[in-house]
Amino acid sequence: MVKGKQSILFDKAVYIEETACIVGQKEGEGPLGGSFDIVVEDPMFGSKNWEEAESRLQEMAMDKLLSKTQVPREQIRYIFAGDLLGQLIATSFGLKKYDIPVFGLYGACSTMGEAMSLGAITISGGCADNVVAMASSHFASAEKQFRFPLEYGNQRPETSTWTVTGCGAVMLTAQSQPVSIKGITTGKIVDFGVKDSMNMGACMAPAAADLITANFKDLEVDEKYYDRIITGDLGVVGRKILLDLLREKGYDLSSNHMDCGIEIFDAKNQDTKAGGSGCACSAVTLCAYILKNMKNRKWNRVLFIPTGALLSTVSYNEGKSVPGTAHGVILERQA
Amino acid sequence: MVKGKQSILFDKAVYIEETACIVGQKEGEGPLGGSFDIVVEDPMFGSKNWEEAESRLQEMAMDKLLSKTQVPREQIRYIFAGDLLGQLIATSFGLKKYDIPVFGLYGACSTMGEAMSLGAITISGGCADNVVAMASSHFASAEKQFRFPLEYGNQRPETSTWTVTGCGAVMLTAQSQPVSIKGITTGKIVDFGVKDSMNMGACMAPAAADLITANFKDLEVDEKYYDRIITGDLGVVGRKILLDLLREKGYDLSSNHMDCGIEIFDAKNQDTKAGGSGCACSAVTLCAYILKNMKNRKWNRVLFIPTGALLSTVSYNEGKSVPGTAHGVILERQA
Repeated sequence: MVKGKQSILFDKAVYIEETACIVGQKEGEGPLGGSFDIVVEDPMFGSKNWEEAESRLQEMAMDKLLSKTQVPREQIRYIFAGDLLGQLIATSFGLKKYDIPVFGLYGACSTMGEAMSLGAITISGGCADNVVAMASSHFASAEKQFRFPLEYGNQRPETSTWTVTGCGAVMLTAQSQPVSIKGITTGKIVDFGVKDSMNMGACMAPAAADLITANFKDLEVDEKYYDRIITGDLGVVGRKILLDLLREKGYDLSSNHMDCGIEIFDAKNQDTKAGGSGCACSAVTLCAYILKNMKNRKWNRVLFIPTGALLSTVSYNEGKSVPGTAHGVILERQA
Repeated sequence: MVKGKQSILFDKAVYIEETACIVGQKEGEGPLGGSFDIVVEDPMFGSKNWEEAESRLQEMAMDKLLSKTQVPREQIRYIFAGDLLGQLIATSFGLKKYDIPVFGLYGACSTMGEAMSLGAITISGGCADNVVAMASSHFASAEKQFRFPLEYGNQRPETSTWTVTGCGAVMLTAQSQPVSIKGITTGKIVDFGVKDSMNMGACMAPAAADLITANFKDLEVDEKYYDRIITGDLGVVGRKILLDLLREKGYDLSSNHMDCGIEIFDAKNQDTKAGGSGCACSAVTLCAYILKNMKNRKWNRVLFIPTGALLSTVSYNEGKSVPGTAHGVILERQA
């Protein structure tokens, strides 16, 4: 059922059947280290280059998901997937062996929210029984794509974030499970004119604030409706801006907002500056942490909002700003 | 209703309400020149660089669609859109002003098929009344992204194709209209190991053959079921491979197959070698030519298959192949 301007509450329920998450060594050493399905110490994941390494991450996550669910590959109707690399090469090369129809998505670091939203629309509309939503990122392929060669050893300002090496995948289904996707709120492209590619938090915070406000208005609720409102990768700088922007609109999220980028690393001891980022940041935190806390009833209602900075070296070098976007997914623990 | 392994026939019908298409001068001088909504002589479209020019194309197509339909912007629930550039910058910067939720898609030159498929799933499932599906490409931004600087003046082999400068947009709706999207067949990633970035037709033909075969099997039909089977941008080289591959499977498409890349240019007089390509190739040919021939009942049933070559300079320079994909849309003229 369409609600307000940007939201849907699904008439026919959509559930999260199973998850899989793979991360690199640094993520394994972080606060959530014990909760990931697989931690791989080799940053190349046995591959010849960073892009292949990221494809391998997608493959490992998909394999793990298939083995955990025992759903035969032929019964997975679609994969909704994406990554940060130009022309989604991590996704194309990582998923081609599965012989499953693929919808390639680009929402920058919000891709996991976009994938879950479109997967949920597809299942709720009766167009599939099982679909997989997934997203990956790799620190080294992202640095090569967006910033500097690793060998250059650039300094990292305090506002910068550390791209998470990992891949998170969820299987969505029409069959009843403990956690449902109750609805979605889909983001617009929001541009506050920020031009600092080393401050992604500031680029994305306005889009997150816009999304959260739209969700509240569409559902006629406020911040107290949710046990947790969890953004993707704003980091400490973006979180502060988000809370300020929402306070101006009359909402106080200081007690129930969390950010995956803040949770995934121990910023002080792991030198990740403002926090973690990348498509995988929200995707693996969802799988390893958020859904576990929902299954064990610590939280019953969560607004999960992967956030994305629509950064490209081409547009950046042509003097453009970095617009933000966000894709909200309303998660609910069944009674 | 789910059909076979890769197809859906929609229970609740989805219709094409209106279209808009903008092209550059070369396309305007081609065989379909008189049928486009707008032909712009300035290749920069009044912008400062090629990427901005492509964003401007998206903006012009959207503006034209809004003015033709008179549907207020607030009633468009989602835009499904994409382009060929890294991180979809043509799309992000072209569509940000509209204040409409955007799903960013990447299916290389198959993006129009992907956008229409996801838009149709969304409308059929009752999650929207009006959505826009659109895709763009620009010859110069694509050459810069994938091949050589224009100033270098590289030679073009006979197998090469010419990226169409244009943007096509369709508004999809649940309200009855002359042409419906009866169903979709969604493509897998198909890799025959072709490594020639100057022969996209050969990279994509296996994916198109796979898609067409899947469609026939899923719907339990053969080539005679359709008045036309129209691929996106195989060009003359890819078309020949497609017909050969399908002949091996027992299908003869020689009399009812068409390719947008062959239709859009006069290859001999416009020096476009094997034909046209790019996301816009199938998108603008759909709007300017295919749907017009369906409205006037020349064709009643068309399988429209935008085809995509999952090419990236990074994967290409790392020695990888160019996998293909394709997204099929089943179009039907209402009685």
